[in-house]
Amino acid sequence: MKIVVVGGVAGGMSFAARARRLSEGAEIVVLERGPYVSFANCGLPYHLAGEIPDRSSLLLHTPDSLSESLALEVRTEHEVLAIDRQARTVRVRDLCANTEYDEPYDTLVLSTGAAPLVPPLPGADLPPVRVLRSVPDVDALRALVDAGAHRALVVGAGFIGLETAEAFARRGLQVTVVELADQVLAPLDPEMARSVQAELERHGVDVRLSVSLTAIHAGGAGPGENGAGENGAGENGAGENGAGAVVAELSDGTRLPADVVLLAVGVRPESALAQGAGLATTPRGGVIVDEHLLTSDPAIYAVGDAIQVTDAVTGQPAMVPLAGPANRQGRAAADHLFGRPGRRSPVLGTAIVRVFDVVAATTGRSEKALRAAGIAHGTVHLHPQNHAGYYPGAVPLHLKLVFSPEGRVLGAQATGSDGVDKRIDVIATAIRAGLTVQDLADLELAYAPPFGSAKDPVNMAGFIASNLLAGDVDLWTARDLPDFPENTVLIDVRSPEEFSTGHLPGALNIPHTQLRNRLGEIPEGRPVRLYCASGFRSYLAHRILRQRGHDRVSTLSGGLQTLTLCTPDLPLTTP
Amino acid sequence: MKIVVVGGVAGGMSFAARARRLSEGAEIVVLERGPYVSFANCGLPYHLAGEIPDRSSLLLHTPDSLSESLALEVRTEHEVLAIDRQARTVRVRDLCANTEYDEPYDTLVLSTGAAPLVPPLPGADLPPVRVLRSVPDVDALRALVDAGAHRALVVGAGFIGLETAEAFARRGLQVTVVELADQVLAPLDPEMARSVQAELERHGVDVRLSVSLTAIHAGGAGPGENGAGENGAGENGAGENGAGAVVAELSDGTRLPADVVLLAVGVRPESALAQGAGLATTPRGGVIVDEHLLTSDPAIYAVGDAIQVTDAVTGQPAMVPLAGPANRQGRAAADHLFGRPGRRSPVLGTAIVRVFDVVAATTGRSEKALRAAGIAHGTVHLHPQNHAGYYPGAVPLHLKLVFSPEGRVLGAQATGSDGVDKRIDVIATAIRAGLTVQDLADLELAYAPPFGSAKDPVNMAGFIASNLLAGDVDLWTARDLPDFPENTVLIDVRSPEEFSTGHLPGALNIPHTQLRNRLGEIPEGRPVRLYCASGFRSYLAHRILRQRGHDRVSTLSGGLQTLTLCTPDLPLTTP
Repeated sequence: MKIVVVGGVAGGMSFAARARRLSEGAEIVVLERGPYVSFANCGLPYHLAGEIPDRSSLLLHTPDSLSESLALEVRTEHEVLAIDRQARTVRVRDLCANTEYDEPYDTLVLSTGAAPLVPPLPGADLPPVRVLRSVPDVDALRALVDAGAHRALVVGAGFIGLETAEAFARRGLQVTVVELADQVLAPLDPEMARSVQAELERHGVDVRLSVSLTAIHAGGAGPGENGAGENGAGENGAGENGAGAVVAELSDGTRLPADVVLLAVGVRPESALAQGAGLATTPRGGVIVDEHLLTSDPAIYAVGDAIQVTDAVTGQPAMVPLAGPANRQGRAAADHLFGRPGRRSPVLGTAIVRVFDVVAATTGRSEKALRAAGIAHGTVHLHPQNHAGYYPGAVPLHLKLVFSPEGRVLGAQATGSDGVDKRIDVIATAIRAGLTVQDLADLELAYAPPFGSAKDPVNMAGFIASNLLAGDVDLWTARDLPDFPENTVLIDVRSPEEFSTGHLPGALNIPHTQLRNRLGEIPEGRPVRLYCASGFRSYLAHRILRQRGHDRVSTLSGGLQTLTLCTPDLPLTTP
Repeated sequence: MKIVVVGGVAGGMSFAARARRLSEGAEIVVLERGPYVSFANCGLPYHLAGEIPDRSSLLLHTPDSLSESLALEVRTEHEVLAIDRQARTVRVRDLCANTEYDEPYDTLVLSTGAAPLVPPLPGADLPPVRVLRSVPDVDALRALVDAGAHRALVVGAGFIGLETAEAFARRGLQVTVVELADQVLAPLDPEMARSVQAELERHGVDVRLSVSLTAIHAGGAGPGENGAGENGAGENGAGENGAGAVVAELSDGTRLPADVVLLAVGVRPESALAQGAGLATTPRGGVIVDEHLLTSDPAIYAVGDAIQVTDAVTGQPAMVPLAGPANRQGRAAADHLFGRPGRRSPVLGTAIVRVFDVVAATTGRSEKALRAAGIAHGTVHLHPQNHAGYYPGAVPLHLKLVFSPEGRVLGAQATGSDGVDKRIDVIATAIRAGLTVQDLADLELAYAPPFGSAKDPVNMAGFIASNLLAGDVDLWTARDLPDFPENTVLIDVRSPEEFSTGHLPGALNIPHTQLRNRLGEIPEGRPVRLYCASGFRSYLAHRILRQRGHDRVSTLSGGLQTLTLCTPDLPLTTP
């Protein structure tokens, strides 16, 4: 059997390696347009930052090593131009020799990936305007920085945009991030993304939300109105490599001078090859595959960022360009080709990013995604410590759990530092297994003081969500803030000391420890809104009031910690 | 309703707190024999070590704080002597006032815990011979250390024994650990425990296995034969607090002088109260409860270390004294009392320990436990890095997965440092959910280079186990080493450089990259045993040979890394 794989990273290379392990007899040819195969694309921003100083450590395999180890014939700088499905050949251009030839196949595997979107704006083709997807991309960015660029503009505040913004900042550049949405990190809900934005700002990154890039003008070496004079004449070293500086124009009229501009506004599936061959694709360009990763042509598989997948939570079609699913799709397709039970899995979209000292991660669906899809759900927020508070070094973890009215876990997001990845991985496993919030409450996780608590944050999230679904607690959130029912009694159950540092306007202070003795201060029959710092003490107060005849009580979900994330400019009253 | 809770830590306090949140009307009395309730018992060794310097941070609640917050009536230093089930009263002794009284109950909750085993040996009652379970226990140990003890003997190499051995060493003591078994950390399989033992020894702890304590003799201030002269006359400060030093006698005849001896040989359920009241208990003293944590008396619940639980993997009865299950049992019993769906869960025994810089964790059943129980199982070993190798700071992780012949995950163990807790928690979640090794292969975990790999160690474990179950690979282990079939060809598929640093006697060196060209060197029809460093290259070689007509091939599970853990004194040949 002759197998031709188009694309030699992630999905394509996983397919080729697995296929070889299943078949010594197959002839396997991997055609890669770029100069490298099997490189560490997720490591590119860290190489730009200098955290991975050795460029060669990004190159995990070479055509020679793959030939020796797996008897693969890997041809880099070979671009596939077209597929002839009748003849079962692909038309290949050797980009070095500048020649073309036809390569026959019995089975074709498309792992063509996704290309960074380049918006059709004036100046998007200027030399300092770059994307980051490949080793040559990072080489170009490093060259601009090494040549003295000191003002960077990152367009798009997704994972790659923020990793690259951090890399620029670590290299000493002044960095501005512009983002069309009103938050960074779109896969997260806005309140969960807030601490990432704050971390960027803490490190001097200028984050501008709800604004877009409209044009890029050449020759902006002089300081623009935002240049702040630091870009003195003659100091613009980026000009030395011939790229020159540019001025970016934003939708709000701002003009930002920059020596390097990274476009990180998303990716589009590279499906021109599939479309040209008449394979079924979606209107957005996703290659349509069946459960075994076969395209509409049974001799052609497709895997990785170019294919349409199924969202594991909603069951809806989705495009999820992530390394993990791409690798597993490659393996599954090879399994299927050789008669094994290989099938694609629905995708959770589990993802994580480190931005300076803050870690943010997500799995499953966000609250805003479910709301947009009209899918019923509940949420809880909590702010536990990553491990036992009495053991030194405990740091806060901000955790949000999203679940169905029946309790099935639908998603989670976490920010913090140590321990974020662990909790998201546990919940990702739980979602894959169809577990409920009650099951999370009951998980038996590894506990010793340096690692967790006897009641782990994941257990706590399960407890709180279970209480909500059981009707033991009602929650209010930032969305309810301006619209309390008439005559609502707002009670801050924190200590007087905490109350005096700032509280919600109109709140009465009754510490939860005094509540049983001060019930008379709460008029009967009135709605009661409780809050504390993180939601635990107000939950205790809630239980007291509900059992003492107050039946219109609710508690601020996640306490003031969540509220101030949702409403950063919330005015707090001090006496 | 009047609820009396016996025992104010973990399970008992979880019950009381949950009961109050479900019922403002209940009268809840907590009777605790010791001077503290709700203290951080898992933090005690860290306080001894000085890592948690502030003793008060171990005391999470006081009777006053519990009265204010939860309206609990907590009476410390009140010991329950007997239960009168007919009268529904308990007989209580006030240990301060030295008085007795009867306390009535409608519902009684026994959370009496487990007591450290003190073997009935001569001298076990000498002052320097201690256990570690409570705050007074750690106070006593600290006093011995502060008074100048400089030789510590720890009897028992379980979790508490090793945490305390580390604490002594951090305080500057010379530490010896003796353990009856032939390994430390009995819940782990021996090869997985080896790196923990090595870490102890690296820090100067003298670990003696397969030996037991037979007697302790008073007045050993002078150096014994193992005292090495360091305990010079007049320098034995431990004598200053009147405890004096002792000489421990071991089953192998060794006599060890020590200024402090910790007995950490296990615990026994504190079930005298239950037994005295005629409640059903097991021969080993475990209180028997139903699925709702009710004892044989429907007015009496029991939770925590004193009860018999069900092993989640085998379905067999078990005693598992751990904080996490105790807390959840307390909550579940309270739920059931107040009409909620509260029930006990089978216990996985998930546990973790940090010993100096090594972390070891386990969940589910070990290989040796399944073998002892006659339950069919397979295992795989792997040695991945904790995160992408190209990102700085990657450290090795040693992972063992145990599974049924049908692929259901039955257990896992891991050692290493960063990332051990995460992988065990993910697998603990998978076991709870009934997932298979194929499911582990397909988990979608959070990946960015500082946190993991696109194929996480958990995925890799799933891949390897799936390959084994699919018949794509056969494994050999240390147990097969002396008994290879006749005419076996043993092949080391590492590089010549690696081979030259030491290889198995009789091995032929054919690097896996040369195998396809050197097939002629392997006689047909002979059994072939392959190995490499970690098992991956020999797996590739295995696939080549199997498809080239060699049908009696097997690969060393986990490579030489696992083999040398299983057989530390394995003789390796060098040219």
